[in-house]
Amino acid sequence: MKEKIRNLINEMTLEEKASLCSGLDFWSTKPVDRLNIPNINMSDGPHGLRYQDEEADNFGINDSVPATCFPSGATLACSWDRDLMNKVGRTLGKESKDHGVNILLGPAINIKRSPLCGRNFEYLSEDPYLSSQLAVNYIKGVQSEGVGTSVKHFAANNQEYNRMSIDTIVDERTLREIYLASFEEAIKQGKPWTVMCSYNQVNGDFASENDYLLTKVLRDEWGYEGIVISDWGAVNDRVKGMKAGLDLEMPSCFGISDKEIVSAVKNGELPEEVVDTTAERLLNIIYQAIETKKETAVSLEYHHEIAKHAAEESMVLLKNEDGILPLKKDMKVAVLGEFAENPRFQGGGSSHVNAYKVDELLYQIKAVAPGSKIEFAPGFDLESDEIDNKLMEEAVNKAKDCDVAVIFIGLPERYESEGYDRKHMRIPHNQVELLKEVSKVQNNIVAVLCNGAPIEMPWRQYVKGILEGYLGGQALFGAISEILFGGINPSGKLAETFPEKLSDNPSYLNFPGEEDRVVYAEGLFVGYRYYNKKEIAPAYPFGYGLSYTTFEYSDITVSKNEILDTEELAVTLKVKNTGKVKGKEVIQLYVRDMESSVIRPEKELKGFEKIELEPDEVKEVKFTLDKRSFAYYNRQISDWHVETGAFQILIGSSSDDIRLKTQITVKGTVDIPKKITENTTVREILLNGDPSSEVYQLVIKGLNDRGLDVKELKSEESLFGSIVLRSLMKFVGIEVDYKKLLQ
Amino acid sequence: MKEKIRNLINEMTLEEKASLCSGLDFWSTKPVDRLNIPNINMSDGPHGLRYQDEEADNFGINDSVPATCFPSGATLACSWDRDLMNKVGRTLGKESKDHGVNILLGPAINIKRSPLCGRNFEYLSEDPYLSSQLAVNYIKGVQSEGVGTSVKHFAANNQEYNRMSIDTIVDERTLREIYLASFEEAIKQGKPWTVMCSYNQVNGDFASENDYLLTKVLRDEWGYEGIVISDWGAVNDRVKGMKAGLDLEMPSCFGISDKEIVSAVKNGELPEEVVDTTAERLLNIIYQAIETKKETAVSLEYHHEIAKHAAEESMVLLKNEDGILPLKKDMKVAVLGEFAENPRFQGGGSSHVNAYKVDELLYQIKAVAPGSKIEFAPGFDLESDEIDNKLMEEAVNKAKDCDVAVIFIGLPERYESEGYDRKHMRIPHNQVELLKEVSKVQNNIVAVLCNGAPIEMPWRQYVKGILEGYLGGQALFGAISEILFGGINPSGKLAETFPEKLSDNPSYLNFPGEEDRVVYAEGLFVGYRYYNKKEIAPAYPFGYGLSYTTFEYSDITVSKNEILDTEELAVTLKVKNTGKVKGKEVIQLYVRDMESSVIRPEKELKGFEKIELEPDEVKEVKFTLDKRSFAYYNRQISDWHVETGAFQILIGSSSDDIRLKTQITVKGTVDIPKKITENTTVREILLNGDPSSEVYQLVIKGLNDRGLDVKELKSEESLFGSIVLRSLMKFVGIEVDYKKLLQ
Repeated sequence: MKEKIRNLINEMTLEEKASLCSGLDFWSTKPVDRLNIPNINMSDGPHGLRYQDEEADNFGINDSVPATCFPSGATLACSWDRDLMNKVGRTLGKESKDHGVNILLGPAINIKRSPLCGRNFEYLSEDPYLSSQLAVNYIKGVQSEGVGTSVKHFAANNQEYNRMSIDTIVDERTLREIYLASFEEAIKQGKPWTVMCSYNQVNGDFASENDYLLTKVLRDEWGYEGIVISDWGAVNDRVKGMKAGLDLEMPSCFGISDKEIVSAVKNGELPEEVVDTTAERLLNIIYQAIETKKETAVSLEYHHEIAKHAAEESMVLLKNEDGILPLKKDMKVAVLGEFAENPRFQGGGSSHVNAYKVDELLYQIKAVAPGSKIEFAPGFDLESDEIDNKLMEEAVNKAKDCDVAVIFIGLPERYESEGYDRKHMRIPHNQVELLKEVSKVQNNIVAVLCNGAPIEMPWRQYVKGILEGYLGGQALFGAISEILFGGINPSGKLAETFPEKLSDNPSYLNFPGEEDRVVYAEGLFVGYRYYNKKEIAPAYPFGYGLSYTTFEYSDITVSKNEILDTEELAVTLKVKNTGKVKGKEVIQLYVRDMESSVIRPEKELKGFEKIELEPDEVKEVKFTLDKRSFAYYNRQISDWHVETGAFQILIGSSSDDIRLKTQITVKGTVDIPKKITENTTVREILLNGDPSSEVYQLVIKGLNDRGLDVKELKSEESLFGSIVLRSLMKFVGIEVDYKKLLQ
Repeated sequence: MKEKIRNLINEMTLEEKASLCSGLDFWSTKPVDRLNIPNINMSDGPHGLRYQDEEADNFGINDSVPATCFPSGATLACSWDRDLMNKVGRTLGKESKDHGVNILLGPAINIKRSPLCGRNFEYLSEDPYLSSQLAVNYIKGVQSEGVGTSVKHFAANNQEYNRMSIDTIVDERTLREIYLASFEEAIKQGKPWTVMCSYNQVNGDFASENDYLLTKVLRDEWGYEGIVISDWGAVNDRVKGMKAGLDLEMPSCFGISDKEIVSAVKNGELPEEVVDTTAERLLNIIYQAIETKKETAVSLEYHHEIAKHAAEESMVLLKNEDGILPLKKDMKVAVLGEFAENPRFQGGGSSHVNAYKVDELLYQIKAVAPGSKIEFAPGFDLESDEIDNKLMEEAVNKAKDCDVAVIFIGLPERYESEGYDRKHMRIPHNQVELLKEVSKVQNNIVAVLCNGAPIEMPWRQYVKGILEGYLGGQALFGAISEILFGGINPSGKLAETFPEKLSDNPSYLNFPGEEDRVVYAEGLFVGYRYYNKKEIAPAYPFGYGLSYTTFEYSDITVSKNEILDTEELAVTLKVKNTGKVKGKEVIQLYVRDMESSVIRPEKELKGFEKIELEPDEVKEVKFTLDKRSFAYYNRQISDWHVETGAFQILIGSSSDDIRLKTQITVKGTVDIPKKITENTTVREILLNGDPSSEVYQLVIKGLNDRGLDVKELKSEESLFGSIVLRSLMKFVGIEVDYKKLLQ
């Protein structure tokens, strides 16, 4: 095949090669009929196929073929379930094949920097390890069906505001440890066929023409061999993009860019080898894609069950005072909130799926709790924030007469969507007022949340139970009914922090930026890394989620107490279900560097496992840690680095609920030489310098000449410890040729 | 004189001119005997003269002549009293003259970025307006006596850790609005004879050779005409420094730098005109300095009274539950804490003064409350953090038998000093334990704090009264006694925020930096600007301070409801003393920009006045605001800029206690053109473009071609509003020559 492709490239004219580098239309690559080069098709994902079979207005969000609408990324991520991600991926792959779609445009794995980002519902997490682990499995799932994925949006695209022009200013360590880290394993292990570059600029260069991102990091360092696709309309300077490693411009450019490529080659600005390489990468994917046979046996009914299972695994029980949940199956239940009738189960924008079918709540409740009695009232109008007294009154009356009120509240679609960011984290006023009014007549309230991203919940004292349903996909009501009545024991854990208030969020001071720049000034301190370090108690922390049972952690062991950073460490522990019902627990492993010369978070997620336990059952859980589990990105050596020292291994049921702890020593095997210059502090030379060196001797002489106590200077409390070599020499009048001394 | 100096320069050899550019020894410039050019002398300040009359070890902190030790900068700033600053300055000027000192090395006006900075006790405030206003008056005071000042440390030197090598990374807007702003008015209005550059690097260049700081900003923009002195040992590359505007290297360089200057001129690297200009600036100051006659009538006794008055004006009453203060004059008082006997009244390092005399507390109390009965016990050992049970027991026993316990607690000298930063904000453990033990036997506790910078006070529920004494200078106990017993009504207001805990501080994530860099990532959000915006309640806010009386604010008026940014605005209001005793109030004016295209603080201090009122007395207070009161620093035009719009004028008794509000409109007179490029968003073009322009027409055509609703796109909620021109054109297949279109 490789040879066939090379031969093809040799036969192609420059114009034909250039023509491969942009789309035929909105969803396809261009064929080259003269050489029988076929084209391939793409469709929006990531939580359902948005295949448009007619050339309609595919610029907007119009009808696509019916498909399974899975829970959106924000929801799925709360499953912390690698296998589930794989299964959803495989199912999406099958549906794609069914329609001849070669590449599904997902997963979307940008880090959730601010809860306000309009597209957070598509993204997975605030943590790069969790995000990339889930992404790997999703990618492998889709691609196991012979359908490609497109990991997006690469990179540092964490807001919708001015997304096509904004320049993201972010330091390299933050980029590496947070924003790129979400992509790194997804790409290295998942090997997606395509990577989609984002619209924005990153440190002054558009992502679509960012050599650092598309070549240095993606290809040279990560060894990526697939193609890079532009987000739709992301191309700025096509020739610069080509040189930086952008293979395919989407959608059609009406031949404009193709001509630019041709003339750049002709005038010597662009080496033809660059075009050849791009064409080769494209042909590799095209010929790989057309190998896949059309799927013949797709059952959307069966896929609905998978979607339901996915929702059940993902929803998060945030509050359960007095054990109000699960509800008894013979209860009289007031179901309130327009969401219950008019569900919000996916987000707005390019990911919007034409759901094959959508669960009806009352039907689903009857199915799981046939003995229950249900009263429904919408309570508020989703299209408005204003209180509708009639609706409110009706809801309150129904709540009064029931055993419990289950109230569906959250963010209407107009509040969050691709294309714009929220301005605040509140839910509409009329929903909060309904809650307050209902609480006056009914003590037993369960709130079910419908939202794609965190909300403020200053009203949460009014309710006994909170189930975070997120955007649950088309089977949301099946899943919610099962959880409410105990058919399913909730096991989702938050993949993002819910702060008490917007201003607690780390990006708050710099979101969405100014003057078309956004500075990621909070640096590494995204999500729980910030709340931990700043000691800000969130409403609900990262990794948090309740269960109908309880778990006991014990017996943590490590394979060694001291390892080299080239070695692996095994960590094992036991978890027991100490409650009365079967349940699943997500065991989280965090690593804390006990002492560091650089700024580091308090702890970072480096492992997680989800296990299921019958009552009284005990299972052993094992984690394997490696260098990256302990490393930070070092600017000086442009590589990951482990500083020798103590590290704590923390095992938690959430980021704020650490159950077990142990400590090991990791020895770094890479020394970072500390260069002595004339601006090295005397303390540094005394502590780390070679006592036999000329410079060391000079320092000793200088200090003696000034009558300064050498020992005292080593202390950090020394007034003169931070004096630098050149100043000490001047103070004692020694003329030094530093070039010679420090060579 | 100008001509005389020019002639002198013409007569001087290159070597002689170069020799002027560095010190003779630790404290003097070099004379040029051949031409009868005299030398001048400097001495450390800023809160007292540290004149060393012998050539001793002047590298350290050894004996200097007896002088008045005023409250340190952190203390004085809480006076919010321009006249007091002037008076202190004049007094310092007199003492300087008395010893033939020509230049006093102060004021120190770096912004308090972190409460941990070891030198905060010397600095004035976290707010640049307050800092610069006080500095102007100090400078004018000293210089009115014919003694020069040295405004230091210029610039962005806000920590002691690695102060000689650290590189401060700070964006220009933050530098201008916060760090340089503290210096700007001090230099423009105060016209200090000298400015002292700091040790650190600023954005990659040492302050001592930073052309941006020493020439572009200081001289070209601010019109500074004095000389720039290096901090002692701050010179890195002397020739680069010379070119950048550093005039005088201190201390002596043993001729090393002089030779470098000479050879740089000879090899053509340094134009001789630069040396001439430097020499001219130096001679201007030297000849100005020697005009001053020696002071003959210095009364250190009288100066002690001034120091006492300064302390009385500056101490801040933080808590006064149940009106525990003032104490009754016949009370039985347990005075506890070693500080009461062994006072900490100034900070460590180069500012350390050999105080002429130091008040004794018990004597001072007896003087103001002869009928009182005093029991003293040290309670703890200042040299240790460990509890001394015997000391503790003695203190508790004495407290039990008294009417009230006045406990002196705070930071021992070993906790804070020039040269190193604190690692935490706690006071020693043994002091807190003493407090707790005393509280078990005595309900009436007043804590008097001795500290140079904010501390955490998790123990503050144990005490009814807290008087922040800071470092009160040699007359501290006189002042404290007066305040405790009501002879003086406290009127100090905090010049910095006291956060609840260290991690609340804005610089917490980036202090003191890593890898010899410190990034000021919190940007503009220093001090109350941060706590306000982030909605973090501090322990005690900026501008806060209690009084023994109460004040009522009323009748706010503005001279106009709408002004141009070239006009001034007068704001008046009335303040009434509604209590029973005479008192002083600091009225604070803050400005809030109601809507801005750039990130701005919630409010910023733009005016303050301190007035004294008899009971029932009413005074009118008047403020005048100008362009700078409303402006931010705009990167595009490299100038201060006012965006047309509404501004609130907030009058407060502290930053968190706003008593009066009004709103005005300011019209900006400078238009910042918004350039349309191919990366301008369609929304921006539709909102601000010229409808008759070709580009506007093209956008309309593009949108129509794609069937998009032009009106809807203008909304921020439009999915496609942030599409940029180039993408729209590609989507509709219009080939555009942007150079031509947008010329």
